[in-house]
Amino acid sequence: MSIKIGIFGYGNLGRGVESAIRQNSDMELVAVFTRRAPETLKINTPSVPVVSADSVKDYIGKIDVMILCGGSATDLPVQTPALASMFNVVDSFDTHARIPEHFEKVDAAASASGKVAVISVGWDPGMFSLNRMYAGAILPDGKDYTFWGKGVSQGHSDAIRRIEGVIDAKQYTIPVESALEEVRSGSNPSLTVRQKHTRECFVVADDTADKAAIEEKIKTMPNYFADYDTTVHFITKEELDRDHSGIPHGGFVIRTGSTGLSGEHKHVIEYSLKLDSNPEFTASVIVAYARAAYRLNSEGSVGCKTVLDIAPSYLSPKSAAELRRELL
Amino acid sequence: MSIKIGIFGYGNLGRGVESAIRQNSDMELVAVFTRRAPETLKINTPSVPVVSADSVKDYIGKIDVMILCGGSATDLPVQTPALASMFNVVDSFDTHARIPEHFEKVDAAASASGKVAVISVGWDPGMFSLNRMYAGAILPDGKDYTFWGKGVSQGHSDAIRRIEGVIDAKQYTIPVESALEEVRSGSNPSLTVRQKHTRECFVVADDTADKAAIEEKIKTMPNYFADYDTTVHFITKEELDRDHSGIPHGGFVIRTGSTGLSGEHKHVIEYSLKLDSNPEFTASVIVAYARAAYRLNSEGSVGCKTVLDIAPSYLSPKSAAELRRELL
Repeated sequence: MSIKIGIFGYGNLGRGVESAIRQNSDMELVAVFTRRAPETLKINTPSVPVVSADSVKDYIGKIDVMILCGGSATDLPVQTPALASMFNVVDSFDTHARIPEHFEKVDAAASASGKVAVISVGWDPGMFSLNRMYAGAILPDGKDYTFWGKGVSQGHSDAIRRIEGVIDAKQYTIPVESALEEVRSGSNPSLTVRQKHTRECFVVADDTADKAAIEEKIKTMPNYFADYDTTVHFITKEELDRDHSGIPHGGFVIRTGSTGLSGEHKHVIEYSLKLDSNPEFTASVIVAYARAAYRLNSEGSVGCKTVLDIAPSYLSPKSAAELRRELL
Repeated sequence: MSIKIGIFGYGNLGRGVESAIRQNSDMELVAVFTRRAPETLKINTPSVPVVSADSVKDYIGKIDVMILCGGSATDLPVQTPALASMFNVVDSFDTHARIPEHFEKVDAAASASGKVAVISVGWDPGMFSLNRMYAGAILPDGKDYTFWGKGVSQGHSDAIRRIEGVIDAKQYTIPVESALEEVRSGSNPSLTVRQKHTRECFVVADDTADKAAIEEKIKTMPNYFADYDTTVHFITKEELDRDHSGIPHGGFVIRTGSTGLSGEHKHVIEYSLKLDSNPEFTASVIVAYARAAYRLNSEGSVGCKTVLDIAPSYLSPKSAAELRRELL
């Protein structure tokens, strides 16, 4: 008996979930839900129905876990509570500052329906949060550092695209190697935003555009670029498509701390990710937590949870005894 | 109201637990139990009583969690079940192959007494097991690699000390950098024991000893050294005490795997530790899980658990809401 999964929203993340399900033999994709006209959507698993989001109620009882693949800005704040009133759900809500508020709304919905909802699943929030949590509990006298990249920031790429004269753009966030080394040394540095990351932009401009003006606009853009050392490269659309079509990402969570009667021993805990595809990796984390949501609910758990609240063994298809034998 | 901790056994690990408790303001050390004559043992917290192991029963109801600091070979297989019949307990049982058997015995004792026992806590088994578990669940199509070091192996150091003519010795296990790089590249190499680690030995020999014979005995010792590239340095006792008195260790857990419809995207998940003091870091992990044991038992949980069975948030003194706000 496999776990029946629904995908709600079919963009990069939805496609990632679709392919991740194929890697997990205890799971089965039941339907993909879309707000577009279903007949216009071609998915990678032709045997699976594409269904209008309006008909999602018809699938109550037919889907064990609904995986929400919408955006955090406007989709998930509405969709997660709504769908948690019908299904166990997992989302990747990643607006860090609004997680407590999102949690409360989803918890109310899932508690009322008797379902489990797991929110903010992925790698940050998600695996990075977990690692900050473990490392902080182990080394209470210490300091956390998070670096992102090298990887594509969708938000920064979009911000460049909104500049007049820009046809397309891709922005890479790059951790500063010397800052990483300083952190690993255990010297507990205080690092400014500028010292931790640089930003590299590949921009396709209109032939008639003033490139110097575009470069200036990027480098001085508040919040996005002004606080960073930013490099801008103008390239052709062909070069952009050829060399920058991927969505790689990754990063580092490092905690340094000390132990001993007078803090005489230093320790470094480091977790890092190097990802060819940000959405596919995020999807892979989500699918593991979909298994956890299903199992928790089968045991009688209800309400909203995050990665911090779920015991690791729930993520695996293996039994507790197998895990002890193979992994401990 | 602080969590009342007992330490059972006062070697390097026991002293590490003692100092870790001072870093956690929600915990209090109640007593140290020893099989030696209590009056001969001087601990680092003079206000805390040193008590004969024979009197441990007198502390039932006065200690929330007993932390077992004995060895895995002969102490813990007997002590953990015995003490789990009286207290919540945490141990660092690390004989990997015997964990399932140890689990069964401890589970029977803790289930009968209504206590929680957490076994095999530390970094391997422990944090490394956790990371293998998470990474394996996220990337089912992938491969795990564990490297240890650079660090002191107590077992290998002891093996050298047993050779005739050897006064003292310290052995370092060192991961091969080129093997680490090959793994991180995602090329999924098959690595022999010899390709993953080298062994470096610092040996103090008797003046009259045949050094060439000692070196030969070390390098050809089955199980311990024969399968490795081993370097032997003869040094003086003064040099050994001056340069090799620490107990550093660490290591790397790396999983590489692929996602996508045809496995076209590669990912690398890496967790690493660099520890100045192996016993103090192990103790710090144990103390965090002592908090979890106490909280789980307060909620009504009983029986034996491992790090795989415990939700991360139980390790932290912070509330679930605080953790969501600060870490997600």
